[in-house]
Amino acid sequence: MSAKIIDGKAIAADLRARVAGEVATFRAAAGRAPGLAVVLVGEDPASSVYVRSKGRATREAGMESIEHRLPADTDTATLLALVAQLNADAGVDGILVQLPLPAGVDTQAVLLAIDPDKDVDGFHPVNAGRLATGMPGFVPCTPLGCIMLLKSVHPTLSGMDAVVVGRSNIVGKPMAQLLIAESCTVTVAHSRTRDLPAVVRRADIVVAAVGIAGLVKGDWIRPGATVIDVGINRTDTGLVGDVDFAGAVQVAGAITPVPGGVGPMTIACLLANTLDSARRREGVA
Amino acid sequence: MSAKIIDGKAIAADLRARVAGEVATFRAAAGRAPGLAVVLVGEDPASSVYVRSKGRATREAGMESIEHRLPADTDTATLLALVAQLNADAGVDGILVQLPLPAGVDTQAVLLAIDPDKDVDGFHPVNAGRLATGMPGFVPCTPLGCIMLLKSVHPTLSGMDAVVVGRSNIVGKPMAQLLIAESCTVTVAHSRTRDLPAVVRRADIVVAAVGIAGLVKGDWIRPGATVIDVGINRTDTGLVGDVDFAGAVQVAGAITPVPGGVGPMTIACLLANTLDSARRREGVA
Ligand SMILES: NC(=O)c1ccc[n+]([C@@H]2O[C@H](COP(=O)([O-])OP(=O)(O)OC[C@H]3O[C@@H](n4cnc5c(N)ncnc54)[C@H](OP(=O)(O)O)[C@@H]3O)[C@@H](O)[C@H]2O)c1
Ligand SMILES: NC(=O)c1ccc[n+]([C@@H]2O[C@H](COP(=O)([O-])OP(=O)(O)OC[C@H]3O[C@@H](n4cnc5c(N)ncnc54)[C@H](OP(=O)(O)O)[C@@H]3O)[C@@H](O)[C@H]2O)c1
Repeated sequence: MSAKIIDGKAIAADLRARVAGEVATFRAAAGRAPGLAVVLVGEDPASSVYVRSKGRATREAGMESIEHRLPADTDTATLLALVAQLNADAGVDGILVQLPLPAGVDTQAVLLAIDPDKDVDGFHPVNAGRLATGMPGFVPCTPLGCIMLLKSVHPTLSGMDAVVVGRSNIVGKPMAQLLIAESCTVTVAHSRTRDLPAVVRRADIVVAAVGIAGLVKGDWIRPGATVIDVGINRTDTGLVGDVDFAGAVQVAGAITPVPGGVGPMTIACLLANTLDSARRREGVA
Repeated sequence: MSAKIIDGKAIAADLRARVAGEVATFRAAAGRAPGLAVVLVGEDPASSVYVRSKGRATREAGMESIEHRLPADTDTATLLALVAQLNADAGVDGILVQLPLPAGVDTQAVLLAIDPDKDVDGFHPVNAGRLATGMPGFVPCTPLGCIMLLKSVHPTLSGMDAVVVGRSNIVGKPMAQLLIAESCTVTVAHSRTRDLPAVVRRADIVVAAVGIAGLVKGDWIRPGATVIDVGINRTDTGLVGDVDFAGAVQVAGAITPVPGGVGPMTIACLLANTLDSARRREGVA
């Protein structure tokens, strides 16, 4: 028996098409396009690739992409001034500072300076707090995409046992909050977890967000479970996830591939968050 | 075999004595006492009791208690004006609005108006977000007290399997965040959890915060586990917790009684949070 492969690429394409349609409606109502400002400091090649593809996706959805590229030696004060300017700019609905920032820049100060109501990445603690307390706000794009992938398999998640492996601020912890809000019984595991195979084995839903290629083995997966692999690890044999796909696909009920699973959802959710922001800011439904 | 009874009353008394000692040091350094403002609207008898005992504990610790008692028909605008005045008052380090507010008052708006840096209850979403992202901030008093009780038994919690039954914003969810920060493997259960007895049985640490008298049975407890009972339920036979104490005490390694367990810690942690606030605001160590 082989698992259903969750086609993140197709689901992301659907979401992007839906966003593009709603952007057209927004433009007609508001008389302007939603605007996403992206700030890139330095020449990190991976970051440049990300920023380029975010810009392309933004324009393809009918939104305006505003790109600020700054030299690697930009200081914190300059970045804070730029963020303040973007906060004040009525045409900017979303602000995204591409991480990592160069050493020497106070990353925390820069992220805290972003207006929480333009924080489409959902990294500001105000948005983490809104998520934790059930208030409307921006949810980090990767876990938001994971929930959509899960719902493509299980329209309701209520009562399912979910395990999140990883407790980072940008994936693991917000993922756990979203699963709690969906009424899963949620376990958060991490590097100090004593018997990770046993913890993973009892889950109907496994979300792996660790950053170790193939950490989660096929025989850790409960037969029929749904496996969401957030990991992106560059290896000699190409891009692989945190789950041993070849093993897990034999046991799982459904599984995301890497690449083509969670990855494409992240950008699609960024566009959805930016549109949401534009609508809230303009009071357009 | 009978469990060790965790003496919350004694541990809270120790904490209050320590706070009182540090308040004396603060007063000498800052030239003023830390100030805690409590707002009580209406005549709810339970709330009146709480406010009275908070005021007494505040004064006993050498801090100033500022009490604002308002009639039951006070409107939202009046409360917002009072909160704004307390936010601006340099002598006020902590602001606590006693819940529940009368129907008709916009509780959410009032709580959001409190300066997060005076929010010693830790209920403001900014503080929830700080907790979720590992930043310094105010942690809700009840879960903070539970962690102290746990640490009185296990100085380090790292690697332990913890189950939190309940997912409220003021107990269950912040409790889970604190246990994750302590490197427990944490499971959050609630009313939609399918097999609660089985979930509780695998835990080294059980925190029950449900509000149903005796819900958690003795035979749900793993032998030797540590049980923290947050519940306060008024019954014909008096105040009881969410755990069937008579059953659980036979199996657990350690357990909190009700009353005399978590309850006394909550006020003690409120005093500790108020002192922390005063120190931060005055820049005194
Ligand atoms: N698809 C996407 O769009 C997308 C987006 C973001 C991230 N990612 C990928 O997702 C992965 C995780 O990202 P992240 O930012 O969350 O990483 P991170 O901040 O490095 O966090 C990794 C987490 O994994 C835990 N961990 C490490 N070793 C472990 C082990 N042996 N067993 C169990 N847990 C272990 C860590 O535990 P401790 O806390 O105990 O150290 C930590 O909580 C990475 O591969 C990243 O590239 C993909
Ligand atoms: N000692 C103290 O100082 C202190 C402080 C605060 C609270 N308390 C006490 O602690 C208890 C909880 O307070 P709270 O404010 O967190 O209560 P709450 O907001 O009512 O939350 C109760 C939680 O219990 C869950 N629950 C309800 N029935 C359940 C069931 N049959 N099985 C499993 N979970 C169930 C609910 O799940 P759903 O989310 O699915 O509905 C909810 O998450 C109360 O007894 C309260 O008086 C004590």
